[in-house]
Amino acid sequence: MSTVSERELKQLREHLGDRLNTEPALLAHYGHDSSRLAPEGAAVALVLAESTEDVSAALSWANEHEVPVSVRGAGTGLAGGANSYPGGLIISLERMNSILQIDAENRLAVVEAGVITATLDAAAKEHGLFFPPDPASAATSTVGGNIATNAGGLRCVAHGVTTDSVAALEVVLADGRIMRTGSRTRKNVVGYDLKSLFTGSEGTLGIITSATVRLKAIAPGIPRTFRAGFDSIEDAGRAVTAIVNGPHQPEILELLDTFSVEAVEAFHPTGVEIPKGAMLVGQTTGLDANERAEAIAAICTVNGASSTEVSESDSLLEARRLANPALNALGLRVSCDVAVPVASLAEVFNGLAEISKQHGLRISNVAHAGDGNLHCVVESNPELGGEAAAELVIDDITRYALSMGGTISGEHGIGAVKRHELPWQLDEASLAVQFAIKHALDPKGILTPARAI
Amino acid sequence: MSTVSERELKQLREHLGDRLNTEPALLAHYGHDSSRLAPEGAAVALVLAESTEDVSAALSWANEHEVPVSVRGAGTGLAGGANSYPGGLIISLERMNSILQIDAENRLAVVEAGVITATLDAAAKEHGLFFPPDPASAATSTVGGNIATNAGGLRCVAHGVTTDSVAALEVVLADGRIMRTGSRTRKNVVGYDLKSLFTGSEGTLGIITSATVRLKAIAPGIPRTFRAGFDSIEDAGRAVTAIVNGPHQPEILELLDTFSVEAVEAFHPTGVEIPKGAMLVGQTTGLDANERAEAIAAICTVNGASSTEVSESDSLLEARRLANPALNALGLRVSCDVAVPVASLAEVFNGLAEISKQHGLRISNVAHAGDGNLHCVVESNPELGGEAAAELVIDDITRYALSMGGTISGEHGIGAVKRHELPWQLDEASLAVQFAIKHALDPKGILTPARAI
Repeated sequence: MSTVSERELKQLREHLGDRLNTEPALLAHYGHDSSRLAPEGAAVALVLAESTEDVSAALSWANEHEVPVSVRGAGTGLAGGANSYPGGLIISLERMNSILQIDAENRLAVVEAGVITATLDAAAKEHGLFFPPDPASAATSTVGGNIATNAGGLRCVAHGVTTDSVAALEVVLADGRIMRTGSRTRKNVVGYDLKSLFTGSEGTLGIITSATVRLKAIAPGIPRTFRAGFDSIEDAGRAVTAIVNGPHQPEILELLDTFSVEAVEAFHPTGVEIPKGAMLVGQTTGLDANERAEAIAAICTVNGASSTEVSESDSLLEARRLANPALNALGLRVSCDVAVPVASLAEVFNGLAEISKQHGLRISNVAHAGDGNLHCVVESNPELGGEAAAELVIDDITRYALSMGGTISGEHGIGAVKRHELPWQLDEASLAVQFAIKHALDPKGILTPARAI
Repeated sequence: MSTVSERELKQLREHLGDRLNTEPALLAHYGHDSSRLAPEGAAVALVLAESTEDVSAALSWANEHEVPVSVRGAGTGLAGGANSYPGGLIISLERMNSILQIDAENRLAVVEAGVITATLDAAAKEHGLFFPPDPASAATSTVGGNIATNAGGLRCVAHGVTTDSVAALEVVLADGRIMRTGSRTRKNVVGYDLKSLFTGSEGTLGIITSATVRLKAIAPGIPRTFRAGFDSIEDAGRAVTAIVNGPHQPEILELLDTFSVEAVEAFHPTGVEIPKGAMLVGQTTGLDANERAEAIAAICTVNGASSTEVSESDSLLEARRLANPALNALGLRVSCDVAVPVASLAEVFNGLAEISKQHGLRISNVAHAGDGNLHCVVESNPELGGEAAAELVIDDITRYALSMGGTISGEHGIGAVKRHELPWQLDEASLAVQFAIKHALDPKGILTPARAI
């Protein structure tokens, strides 16, 4: 990569005016995400893009001068994917925050990439609709960022991941060309499925500037929250498998082990009973929400729950959404994002206990249990090897999840944090295909280089 | 492309033995699909592959000698995608027909590509599960072919298209390398979404040899079929929009205009009342199937239906599945596969009537109405310009669907038949990206060349 000269920057400023910024404080602010990784270095400039044309001008310039580009939505990513590059350009989409259309009759919305996820959801609500993707960061993260990372969340067990809600995309390619792909219709078999290829590509193939997304109808009636306390986390895992295979599909189905419940209660007290092993908490919707929540609670009891509860209050779910900050407040960072087939959950909790025992380090669990998506937190004790020892445990957990038919990342993505794990999951041919696609679409390698794949 | 020598064919026979075949009758049989297009020429050899290794050996050989390859499941495609090439190699997957696993607790099946779609569905049924994709050809088409074309069908309105049911794939790349991609877990954000890229790529990027697919639970209770007759097809279109936006989602929602109902009745009499304008027919499932079917029938009445009916018999749906052969029996071939946003249906039927009037040629409609997916059939009258005139009408219909926010192919794919229409829908950048990917993964262009993109 070359070093950008003042003269070259001036060329870009001619296009962008004061949407181009070089203040060190701003570069630092926009130069990192929410992961534990520090940026690789300070960028030389920041584009606060206000239009697709701004993004196009910026990429055209970066491609010509071979300047590495990092792309930033709201900086809520957990994999270091938006961290800046030394001598690089940061492109922020946060000013591109218009909801361009809500097409209620076709249950579609067209939004610029920088729209906050919760803002779109609120706008849809006025039409009796909702935007299914709901990562825990929904109040601050952007739709574009959700799409670029194919974000998960709590409602995935009922509504799938972000890619399932993407109908069409506008993307700026590495050299500044603007591409539109996908369709407003559900059925569309015209050429390759580029919208799915770009969704989850973490800024390495192009920059998503706007999206047509699918909305769903809000179910009538009052949602119900159910909770079940288990003496044994293994029983809780078995209950999850039984619920998912039962006749009553929940909207949300989460698991917190004892340590996690304690952490969340310390951070945001709800008065919930601390279970001896684990707690399941979830939601049902629809006119029969109560009946279904009761039926799910009964499945929990059959599978060994020591207490169950159904209510209209969603305070427990609100508390669940705070698990990340709660654990951070205790000095723990979520370090792991594996997923396993849901029928293996009980066995996997056993296996995790075994790994914990082998290393002599505590492993705590918060899980999007209905999807088998586990966020394991490993004790980082300076007297027991500190972070380095914890990282070895994470490695073991990750390999173990793979051995159980799972994946190294359920929803946080690869970014810079998990790149070393890629060959554990992907075979040589699959890696080669990814590199070939990357090279074909970004031959100079300027877009979020050396991340995601 | 070079011409294959006897010596070169002998090399391949050393790998494949009698799985390599050169009998002209077999080459002709396996050298075409169900489209109206004739093959471009006779292939020189046919591989009746029995394993992934067979496919790998065949592609490795074809790549070395630059022999164009066509790929064949059951030959039910309607776009000429499986037609053979002059001097080419045909690879048939029909012998790779094992169901390798039904994992009921995780609602997954692992199948070889040549498994018949209905066979998989029947095997899933033994576990109380079903395979959602159900193209009209389900009784004869293969799972691999469904995936390669991202096939649609009747149940898409409730369960999405084939890609929504694909969890992981095994693919043989152009040079014979074997790649596995995807995951058994629903959440998996590890590298690019290659399984979606290969799904619907119509044999141009690799050959799908096996797949891990998602199954769903069969709803309890007895399904109900509903029917509504309309004097006006426009009213029927309005009813579809109202049903799709209503509280009761149907499992199936189809439309047949008067001419199509007559054609189906002539082919397979059910005694159904012939409507003056159009008939909607569909299905609901679940314990409240009857209540929901009645509610949908009531929506039809509000929107102008002159008669409605709810029953346990699915003979009408069976008849609907025969629309293709019924129209073929009248000398008509389904010529059009556009889709439009579902809220535009009433307006679109008006627009189609206008196009019909302009050309003086009758347009008939069968539609997967709940998805806005229209199969328009245009009268081909030798005294009024014959097929050539009909093709011009199809062109107008296709451009009109695009102008309404639609797509040139909802479920049949591009193949060879619709390639000239691609630039109508895809912009230059999107076409360039597709060609770049194709070239990156198949640099010699041996895999189903000059089709799909």
